Parts: sequence; C-alpha cells; structure tokens
Amino acid sequence: MNRDEIKSLSINYNLQSWSKQKGLNPIPVEKGEGIYFWDFDRKRYSDMSSQLVNLNAGHGNRKIIEAIKEQAEKYCYISPSYASEPRARLAKMIIDLMPGNMGKVFFTNGGADANENAVKMARMFTGRNKIFSRYRSYHGSTYGAGNLTGEPRRYPLEPGIPGFVKFFDPYIYREKIPFASEREAGEYYVAKLREQVIYEGADNVAAIVLETITGSNGVIIPPEGYLKGVRQICDDFGIMLICDEVMAGFGRTGKMFGFENWDIAPDMVTFAKGVTCGYVQLGGVAVSKEIAEFFDDNVLKCGLTYSGHPLACAAGIACLEFYRENNILDNVNSSGKVLGELLEELKEKHPSVGDVRYIGLFSAVELVKDKSSREPLVPYGSDPKGIMKSLIGKLAAEGFMTYSHENMILIAPPLIITPEQLKEEIAKLDGILTVFESEMPI
Amino acid sequence: MNRDEIKSLSINYNLQSWSKQKGLNPIPVEKGEGIYFWDFDRKRYSDMSSQLVNLNAGHGNRKIIEAIKEQAEKYCYISPSYASEPRARLAKMIIDLMPGNMGKVFFTNGGADANENAVKMARMFTGRNKIFSRYRSYHGSTYGAGNLTGEPRRYPLEPGIPGFVKFFDPYIYREKIPFASEREAGEYYVAKLREQVIYEGADNVAAIVLETITGSNGVIIPPEGYLKGVRQICDDFGIMLICDEVMAGFGRTGKMFGFENWDIAPDMVTFAKGVTCGYVQLGGVAVSKEIAEFFDDNVLKCGLTYSGHPLACAAGIACLEFYRENNILDNVNSSGKVLGELLEELKEKHPSVGDVRYIGLFSAVELVKDKSSREPLVPYGSDPKGIMKSLIGKLAAEGFMTYSHENMILIAPPLIITPEQLKEEIAKLDGILTVFESEMPI
Repeated sequence: MNRDEIKSLSINYNLQSWSKQKGLNPIPVEKGEGIYFWDFDRKRYSDMSSQLVNLNAGHGNRKIIEAIKEQAEKYCYISPSYASEPRARLAKMIIDLMPGNMGKVFFTNGGADANENAVKMARMFTGRNKIFSRYRSYHGSTYGAGNLTGEPRRYPLEPGIPGFVKFFDPYIYREKIPFASEREAGEYYVAKLREQVIYEGADNVAAIVLETITGSNGVIIPPEGYLKGVRQICDDFGIMLICDEVMAGFGRTGKMFGFENWDIAPDMVTFAKGVTCGYVQLGGVAVSKEIAEFFDDNVLKCGLTYSGHPLACAAGIACLEFYRENNILDNVNSSGKVLGELLEELKEKHPSVGDVRYIGLFSAVELVKDKSSREPLVPYGSDPKGIMKSLIGKLAAEGFMTYSHENMILIAPPLIITPEQLKEEIAKLDGILTVFESEMPI
Repeated sequence: MNRDEIKSLSINYNLQSWSKQKGLNPIPVEKGEGIYFWDFDRKRYSDMSSQLVNLNAGHGNRKIIEAIKEQAEKYCYISPSYASEPRARLAKMIIDLMPGNMGKVFFTNGGADANENAVKMARMFTGRNKIFSRYRSYHGSTYGAGNLTGEPRRYPLEPGIPGFVKFFDPYIYREKIPFASEREAGEYYVAKLREQVIYEGADNVAAIVLETITGSNGVIIPPEGYLKGVRQICDDFGIMLICDEVMAGFGRTGKMFGFENWDIAPDMVTFAKGVTCGYVQLGGVAVSKEIAEFFDDNVLKCGLTYSGHPLACAAGIACLEFYRENNILDNVNSSGKVLGELLEELKEKHPSVGDVRYIGLFSAVELVKDKSSREPLVPYGSDPKGIMKSLIGKLAAEGFMTYSHENMILIAPPLIITPEQLKEEIAKLDGILTVFESEMPI
C-alpha cells in the first residue's frame, strides 16, 4: 500500500490514543534503522524519544529481528502452564542483572499489566490493602495501573479503586521551600512521606509504588538520600517497595536499572519497554526471594493468556545480549554526558528553558513563561492554545521527533546514539527554541 | 537447553499463574504442529483446548509464521501515533467481518486490556458510571477486567471498583425453575435483568458486558431470545452492549463471531486470542460508528505503548487470511457437528456427565456426583481433594491435553481438527471417564 492508502485506512478504521480523532494526520512510516526512521516520502526523522521510550536498541536491530525469526520457526506460543526455554532463560537473565535479594519473574504483556500484577502480589503478600503512589507519575491506563497513575490520565478511571493513596513527588524545581541542599530536600520529602504513611495507618499499607525516575511527567530525578529514606520507611513498617522501571530500566539511566544509581534494593521491580525494545510486547514483575517463597505455599492469583510469551521472551533474550555485547551502558554514560552538557547550554541560553533534568539518556526540558517566576509555559493538565503541540510540530518538521507532556519536552533517544548525532539533533532544538522565543505569544 | 535444564530454570525463576509454586512440574515443550505438540521425550499431546482457547489455527501455522518473519524485516514496532500498514489493514479487515453498524478498532495486547478499554469508552460515551456483568464470567484479571469477572478470580481485586454490578447468567442446567422451553428461559432471564437494571437506575448504566458465550466458566450458551432481549434492554435505556468475543470470536462457534448465531449487533466487541492465535499478542475493541464518531470531537482517553503493534497486526492479517482461504467456518461446522454427537454419546453413557454444552468447536463437559440431583462433582470455587486436577492429569497421561474449571472440562480444539481426530481424542476421554467412574471416591 502507498502512503495515502495507509493514512486513509488508518484514519478511517483505527482509534488513536489520547486524541480527538477529527483532524488527525498520522505519518505513515516505511522503515527504520538505528536512531532514524523514514516516512513514505523518504523524509528521515531522528527518534529522540525512542518512540515511547522503549526502542533502546534503536530501529531495525538485526540481533533482535533474527531472534524473532528463529523462535517463530520453533514455536511462537505455548501456554504459561508449560515450561518454555525462552521464558525460563530470560527470567534467569533478568534476575541475574538485579540485586541479590531478587528471586523470580512473572511476565506480562507490558508495563500497565506489570504494575497491575505487582499491586495484586503486594496485597496478597502483605495481607494489607493500601497502595501509595505519586501525583506526577504515570504507571499505565488500565484500571489498576491507572489508579496508581497520579496525573490527569487517571481521571477517566475515577471514582477510583478503594485504598489507592497519592503522595507528592520530590519535585524540587517547583517546591517553594528554599532547601539548602539536595540532601535536605530528600530528607524533607521522606519525612513528609513517613508522616503520611503513619496518618494512613502504616499497618494498612501494602506497597509504595514509584517510578524510580519519573518518566513522562518530566524526568523527575530523586534527590540524594530520598530513595534510601523511602526504603527505610518500607523496612520500618513492612511495606513493599515497588520500583516501576518501565522507562528507567534496561540501561536508560546509565545503569541497568534506575535504582542502582542510589544503591537500593526494591522488593519488586516492574519492567517492560527496554526488555524487548517493544519488538514483541513484553513486561513483567520481578519479585524478591521472600515474596517468591511466599507463593510456594500460597496461590499466586495472577494470570494472563500471554504470560511468558515465547516469541516475546526470545526477543528479550536477544535484546539483553545486545546490550551486553555492545557495552551499551558505556555508550549511555559517554553520550549521556554530552547530552547533559548540551542541555545545560540550552538552559543557559534560552529564556524559555526553566529547567533541564537528565540522567544517562533520559532527560526533559521544562519550559516556562518566565525564568524567575518559573510559571509553566502551559497550565497544568491543559494546553488550550496548543503551544506545546505547535512546538513539537515544528521540531518534527526539522526531523526531530519526540513528544511533550505538560510543559516539558522529553528527550530520550535510543541508547546507541553517538555524541555527534546528539549535537546535530540538539542544535535543531536550539534553533526551534530561538524561533519560538522570538514569536512567543506570552 | 535440554528438558531438565528448561524445567529447572522454569521452576527456579518463573512465577506460574494461578498456582502454588511448590510442587509444580511443568512440561517443557519442544515443538508443535497442527493440533499436536511434543515434549522433549517425543511424547505427543493433542491440544484439545487450543492452549487457552487461542490457537484456533493450530500450532506451527506456516502462513502466520511467514507473515511474522516478513514484517520483522520491515519493522517490528512503531508508536501508535504513526500510521502503519499492518494496523490500518487489520482494522479494516475486522470491521469488514462485523455487522454494518461497526466503525473503528482500538487495538490492545490481549483480552483483559481490551475489556478495560471497552469499559472506559462506554463510560466516556454515555457519561454514566455503572457497568453490568455476569457472575459466571471471566473477562481478565487486571483490575478493570477483573472487576467485570464474576467468578473467584475476581476476589483478589476486592474491595472492588465502584459501579460494577453483577447479574445472573442464563445457566439453565442449574436453574430450579422448570422452564417449558428454552425461549421461556430466555424471557425469564431477560425480564430479571431488566428488573435489575431498573433497580440500579437505568440512566446510571453505561454498559452491559457479557461473554457472548461464557467460556472458561463452562460454555454457557445463551437460550433462544436471550441476546435479542438484552439488546432490547440496551436500546430502551441507552446502554452499550459489549460482547466479549475473546474466546468465542474468530470462528470458534462456527460463525466468525459468537453473536452472529443469534443475529444481534453489539455496540462494542472485544476480541483477542483467535485474532492472531496468540502467535503475537493482540487484542482490541471494535466500536460502533456512533461511538467512533463521538471520539471525533471528544478525546479518547485510552492508550498503551503497544496499541496496534505492527508485528502483532501483521500476524493478525495472516491469521484472518488463513481462516478465509481455508474456509475455516466450514470445518468448524462439520467437525463441530461430530463433536456434538460424540459429547451426547458421552452424556448418554456416563453417570458422571451431567451436561454437555457445545457450539461449533467450543464445548464443555459438566461433571456431577449424581445425574438426577445434579450435584457438582466438586463444590463451587474449590476442589479440596484435587479430583478435577487428577482427572486432567489422567487425560494428559493419555496425550489428551485440556484444562478444567470448577466441575467442567473444556473441549475447544484448534479449528482445523478433523472428525477422525475428534473421534480418536474423545475416545480417550470416554475411556478415562469409565476408569474414573469405577474408582470415583464419592
């Protein structure tokens, strides 16, 4: 099919996520390779968000493709009640990458159902009901994951599930308190969380769920001491610490998992995206040995038809081997250093850039109307004038593809990106911001 | 890896659905072809449940495998905000198979998230909150789908989501009322449902969700007039009728969709399983033109990273083409006729067979302690002596693989099964039941 046929069928027969359907004009994609993909007019786009922060190994990765083809010839699917080599091997590989307290993996289709099942397991294991999660967080849009989610994508799921409690993120850039140091900020947020846990009845709390590094909501990086403090609250009250590593996991931050940056061990880790780069859908929950052992004698009341899908697990094995064979973490750290420097330059130069936050190849540019007041470029939860959309469109016209959320532009390219490619791409953002600021309707 | 290595890794690193982990002894599968699969000891098993009622085209289907390999070479994944040929084409193919009122498709990863999103869309479209579903039903185990689910797999998700209301299934075999005819039974259940809808406040009800034919809970087939009656209730009160066709859809019942057997048009259809046979995970929600148009001007507040996954959609296209090119419905109807006759013979012959229910190649054998009292072989929600498990194990030893639920054995082989294969397999069940009855500990 040609470009127009694909676009026309797509508009007429597909429902598009998070959108009004009228006026949609989706770009038909023809192919991808490395950090780039092309439309049917041979226009090249650089993928500065790794699609939805999942394509860590980039487009057209030969190793993953070959693994899919090979497994397809063996068998694509067998029910999770049987043992399959891809599922068994991948689970071991994942546990081997994790801290020593971790024991077993329950596989799902993606991040949302990974979080759904983590909540279920935490409730079963603790016998408690309440689940803490944060306001500026996204954990998925199914009912369970969406009730974890703190931002507006939760609203359509309300009235909510009993027992889900929200707390504030350590979002220092927008905190009025003049902290003397990052550590002081970390201590403050931990103390507030401890207070809230006690007010909710610590013995009622099954789990604290957090994106180790908040993703779509603006790459909010935990301050020094914060995660250790949260870990301590969990230890003090027998609460499960669930780290959502759907975006941060599998190399994105320069460590294999985000929590390694702060040297803590969660009780459960949810993952998806980077585990297969989405070549075949896969997610999962890794649980501690203690939790795994609990389910030796207690029924694990979780299940889905495609748990441990063999084709997906085969893609996962190839993907993790690709990371290892190519020392992907080294590239994330060296390219990430350059990304950080480039973002700091943007912040220095542009009056609209209020903050830049980055770790590894995971970053956000937070846009403001005014640098001193820090007033966001668009109000929370809405963009009535379509300012962010227009900005993202201008970037796309330059071949710089990413997405925005609230007043933030996400930059999270494939982990194979080179410093040279980064310089070329961030220069486009620099140029667009300059034009934008000269025309800024504020 | 050899058999023992796979089994050992699987036991040590995988969490197994719906099970205590201690004592698990999963069979490592080496390969599959047609209705059969093999373990590493070359033992052949006939797949009498199509795994989890998803492998409609059987194991090792060349057409689907080739399509996966071909698409993998083009691209495996692109975000749902772009147009992709596999997603666009498959959506049109699905809508073309459906009644004329249907308009667009929103793709998901499986049946659970299809149901999650259908509920969300019904609430958005109607502006109402309450969702009706049935007790003896299974719609998935994530929080939203699991709150639709009526049977014990819902319990771990409670306290439940506000607004989910349960009603009784038309489970005539266990109804005390001596109906004069199937039609009278249908009218009775419809009248009770109408009464309940009114008691809940018909204007509060967004949707009635039902498995068109209840699947895992025992292939409960709607009596004559029932579905038309439910459709009428929905029409009278502006309620969305959501048919869960995750199991019944794509040929299982001898029609492409289960609801075609009773000549009704739903407002939404959820599907998964047979759309790709699970070769790559895929599910979705098809919505009426009216609902699709509503989202022209209203934001569709639904989304997932892998919505419309290109590799999955390519598998779906191949799968639907396979059904068509091989006139799969003809085989379902001819083999299904033989299956029905064989099941009636079992019922006639065996004191433990209380009821057999079948439509196309979708059937259940309901076991009882006593044919006249109809007392179930095992109590509802439990099997303390492991009677059903033991029976399933004995069948497996004969190479007849399926699963049970409550006091029912599910029989739903791949849609390519021949009458000869069915006779060979049902003879095994016959033999096992004979032995079982001679030893029956009741």
